[in-house]
Amino acid sequence: MKIKIANHSGFCYGVKRAIDLAVKNSSDETTYSYGDIIHNKDEINRLKSYNIEPVYDIEDIDRDAKVVIRSHGEPKSTYDRLQAQNVNIVDATCPYVKRIHSLIEDYSTNGYTVFLIGNKNHPEVTASMGWAKGDIFVFGDPKEIEGFEKKIDKILVLAQTTIKESLWDSCAQIINKKYKNVVFINTICSATSLRQNSTRELAAAVDAMLIIGGKKSSNTKKLYEISYSVNKNTFFYENKDEIIVQKFKIYDIIGISAGASTPKWVVDELVEKLLNESEE
Amino acid sequence: MKIKIANHSGFCYGVKRAIDLAVKNSSDETTYSYGDIIHNKDEINRLKSYNIEPVYDIEDIDRDAKVVIRSHGEPKSTYDRLQAQNVNIVDATCPYVKRIHSLIEDYSTNGYTVFLIGNKNHPEVTASMGWAKGDIFVFGDPKEIEGFEKKIDKILVLAQTTIKESLWDSCAQIINKKYKNVVFINTICSATSLRQNSTRELAAAVDAMLIIGGKKSSNTKKLYEISYSVNKNTFFYENKDEIIVQKFKIYDIIGISAGASTPKWVVDELVEKLLNESEE
Repeated sequence: MKIKIANHSGFCYGVKRAIDLAVKNSSDETTYSYGDIIHNKDEINRLKSYNIEPVYDIEDIDRDAKVVIRSHGEPKSTYDRLQAQNVNIVDATCPYVKRIHSLIEDYSTNGYTVFLIGNKNHPEVTASMGWAKGDIFVFGDPKEIEGFEKKIDKILVLAQTTIKESLWDSCAQIINKKYKNVVFINTICSATSLRQNSTRELAAAVDAMLIIGGKKSSNTKKLYEISYSVNKNTFFYENKDEIIVQKFKIYDIIGISAGASTPKWVVDELVEKLLNESEE
Repeated sequence: MKIKIANHSGFCYGVKRAIDLAVKNSSDETTYSYGDIIHNKDEINRLKSYNIEPVYDIEDIDRDAKVVIRSHGEPKSTYDRLQAQNVNIVDATCPYVKRIHSLIEDYSTNGYTVFLIGNKNHPEVTASMGWAKGDIFVFGDPKEIEGFEKKIDKILVLAQTTIKESLWDSCAQIINKKYKNVVFINTICSATSLRQNSTRELAAAVDAMLIIGGKKSSNTKKLYEISYSVNKNTFFYENKDEIIVQKFKIYDIIGISAGASTPKWVVDELVEKLLNESEE
């Protein structure tokens, strides 16, 4: 049996880094994550074994405790409040999100108004908004920009990391028409599109395809659909317990891809089971 | 004037992180980088102002000094030698390369022979080879695999991060034919193809395109060619000193992309000059 694992599969870099930083900073005392660090119950349980616990209110954090800022990032005010509380901050903001914070801070200090394309209720966006030194406006739809009547001298346009390129393009087009001095920096992260594209390519090149992830995870379901559209031998499993290896002995090459919230060890365990039992 | 900066432009994540780590760990004492941290003379000069100096022989590093392992990574033996010398290691190995080291160490410990597709003289590959606990073979061409006659039980196949997908595919095809139990993990990093694709897309959407980077940088030259193929108003500059803004006032939207060794501040200075002088 040959197993091919998709190039871009599983956790994005920012989430992996946040979890690694939390574990690296864990100890016998509780290490807090401010909000949920990942939406996967197996992984949250694993983190509990390192005394890593989510907390949703800064007031609930003990003085001198460690708190991990998750990959989504936080507004500047959160850092100020945590410092006032004498808490030790482990900053696991995704570096691609951190870049957005720096751009907002720098350009708004230099008199730019910031337009952020994204969803104003998404925690990444509310965090980013909290780094502006001047005006910042969030637009989720090109129509909102059409209807926006403010006269502005200089504009910086950025994107929430997870929006679609098509939304960025349609918003940029309207901004181009309405304003004169604009710097566009497309800050969309390619993790999602890379994961989907590499799943599609792999599915087309193998005899059967396994998609690993939570049954409720919408991004994993999307991977399943993409894979199934090019390879009808596509199967969806949450973890190794669900798979019957016997069924896969008829295939020579099996491809594997995993959703954004699927830990690597879940995939590793499944690969091991496949390889061991297929030799029997 | 509107300026659009390509999404994937300039330093890859691993190089940016290595430089940030070096600066963060710099002090009044010399901080060494073991080998060149970046191939860009302006940036090397900037790092000298932080007392960051390259060193090419471990013997030349003072006891108790800090040494940065650059993004390419190092074999395990280098860590052992540095520790024996009582040197403080700042490990700036690119996380994508570090993943290759872990995979090689884990799978070779579990009885797998490792096939690494890449160039056996590239520093990333020589570093990766030094993490195997058993046999590791490097192949730079599918023909080398055709001619390889060793009988092997279980194989892990990985890629140097910077090879082309077409090389991976052609090697994987031969390995598929010759061997039975194989795990393929495509570890190609997408930084180069993303940079080229986003330059191509941006060039097609703007009135003129500026490519920023060293005149001798082959990856920057490649960006220039790609951009020019879709937009004849493509210009190549090393830095802000070379650009005459007057010439660009006829364009409404200007796109910017930068080579892999071009620091962000070189791009920022050029953008500032464009915006300031175009308003005059």
